[in-house]
Amino acid sequence: MKITVLGAGSWGATLAALLFENGHNVTLWEFNAKRAKDLQDRKIKPFNAGTDLPSGLVVTNSIKSLKNSEAVLFAIPSQYMRSLCLYLKNNGISLDGKLIISATKGIENKTLLRMSEVISEIFKGVYENIAVLSGPSHAEEVCRKMPTAVTSAALNLETAERCRMLFMNEYFRVYNQNDIIGVETGSALKNVFAVASGIVDGLKYGDNTKAAIVSRGLKELSRVGVALGGKEQTFYGLSGVGDLMVTCFSKHSRNRAVGQAVGEGKILDEAEKSLGMVAEGIKNTISAYEIGKKLNIELPIINEMYAVLFNGKNPLKAVNDLMTRCPCHE
Amino acid sequence: MKITVLGAGSWGATLAALLFENGHNVTLWEFNAKRAKDLQDRKIKPFNAGTDLPSGLVVTNSIKSLKNSEAVLFAIPSQYMRSLCLYLKNNGISLDGKLIISATKGIENKTLLRMSEVISEIFKGVYENIAVLSGPSHAEEVCRKMPTAVTSAALNLETAERCRMLFMNEYFRVYNQNDIIGVETGSALKNVFAVASGIVDGLKYGDNTKAAIVSRGLKELSRVGVALGGKEQTFYGLSGVGDLMVTCFSKHSRNRAVGQAVGEGKILDEAEKSLGMVAEGIKNTISAYEIGKKLNIELPIINEMYAVLFNGKNPLKAVNDLMTRCPCHE
Repeated sequence: MKITVLGAGSWGATLAALLFENGHNVTLWEFNAKRAKDLQDRKIKPFNAGTDLPSGLVVTNSIKSLKNSEAVLFAIPSQYMRSLCLYLKNNGISLDGKLIISATKGIENKTLLRMSEVISEIFKGVYENIAVLSGPSHAEEVCRKMPTAVTSAALNLETAERCRMLFMNEYFRVYNQNDIIGVETGSALKNVFAVASGIVDGLKYGDNTKAAIVSRGLKELSRVGVALGGKEQTFYGLSGVGDLMVTCFSKHSRNRAVGQAVGEGKILDEAEKSLGMVAEGIKNTISAYEIGKKLNIELPIINEMYAVLFNGKNPLKAVNDLMTRCPCHE
Repeated sequence: MKITVLGAGSWGATLAALLFENGHNVTLWEFNAKRAKDLQDRKIKPFNAGTDLPSGLVVTNSIKSLKNSEAVLFAIPSQYMRSLCLYLKNNGISLDGKLIISATKGIENKTLLRMSEVISEIFKGVYENIAVLSGPSHAEEVCRKMPTAVTSAALNLETAERCRMLFMNEYFRVYNQNDIIGVETGSALKNVFAVASGIVDGLKYGDNTKAAIVSRGLKELSRVGVALGGKEQTFYGLSGVGDLMVTCFSKHSRNRAVGQAVGEGKILDEAEKSLGMVAEGIKNTISAYEIGKKLNIELPIINEMYAVLFNGKNPLKAVNDLMTRCPCHE
């Protein structure tokens, strides 16, 4: 199949390489022209991925390959989803009839829309053709062919299955799902708890504290997801708890790393700068907090996270407040 | 309250110290007379706990403190639960009217009984007075007063609440639960997946593979628990997924360590010997496998674990077989 992958960050590059090695005709699009050329000339390696791109894989800064692609995969930071879609549309690209895959995780600030909703707000009528790929899958490990299992979710299972068939191989196992709301909500909001886990690390607390935050965080995650129309079960699967635990416990997670710097006493701006990468969990803390207020859902951890990140609350005080709050029935 | 803690391993000693510091009158019983005396004389530290016992806490090899204790806490390895209960009963100890707390995790081989069932099979009529304490709580971190959250589960919430009140303090947060079946099943069988996670580490696979095993393992755990009469929700709480993730991702877990040695190519006997500690997950793999056969439940990971540990199946082949099996709907 002819596929264009939008976004040559570590995840986009890794998925492009995987699809290429599965025998597809893949073009990898990179926003920055200089970086696209350096990647195409193999002068640099894809950010963070550690391995070279396969030799036949084309990297370009031109969107013209999209015109006759049968599938398009979005793997860009969530805050650029709307502007990229508008850019494509304004340049005459149509997504009609294409399989659209979103590997971008996030909920848009202010509009509180999921990524598939942003895409289909701009490209009318494509929602049923969108599949979301999500699950515990560090790029650093997928590109080294370590066994990985993820979810392909779409409004109808036929679209999910078309996506699954593209990716499935002996080290990359894909499960179908029709709860696209639950999968997208879970994968966006889990990053809030990854930042919270990092704060626990920064405070030099241990695995017990982290497991408490993550377990109780899972309850908050499913509460939000169900309020938005997702199924509770989805949050206990690969794209929910699976992704949550790997993000919260793994050394690779950038969200966890930002949280750790905050827990060690850095202010948010410094923490983000010292990382030098996009930490989706920060933006998504705002979205999660706004959803809680709008729908009147009890979200103690999300609220404390918001207070720490944006109102200067002391992280140690936040964790202690969470430990000593009142309700004691699980 | 006057409390006797049975078992001076790292968990028993840690809980005894916590109860003592909460102001209770605590006696810590140790099976081995020589070790009891050394602990009482503070010549040795409780196994693995790293800190000293509080100076007023009495350690003894005599069971006579049990006679006028208002509460008794079991913190012994699961395979000794039956013999210890029989020993107590044969020595004239009654548990009538006492609050009984079980911090012992496991399902008895052959009978497939939970620990609270073993206790109440020997001490008739006490089942309603048993509370189970379970959740993500490494002794090494609790004794250093790191924030920890656990579950107190009993058939009726009044018993759970009596247990909760004993333990609750500013760093040890306890949630009540009335699904004692779910809590005990989850805490026993989670160790099977801890061994499986260790195997993933031993094979030098990464967090993706581990998250896949743990996420899919959680499904198996809840399937078994529901078949035995537990509530599915329980498996997504502290005593289920919380304990599961900390056990599978933590450096402290002895079950994970045994699994790692097996994944590196050691046979089970060597792996257990090199650890020098009890790994509950090994015995519990047998129980889990037997439950699956008896109740005809689909348990692919548990079955592969059984094949690796007891039938000499190659661990790499087991993981690959799991990755390439057929069903693809989550």
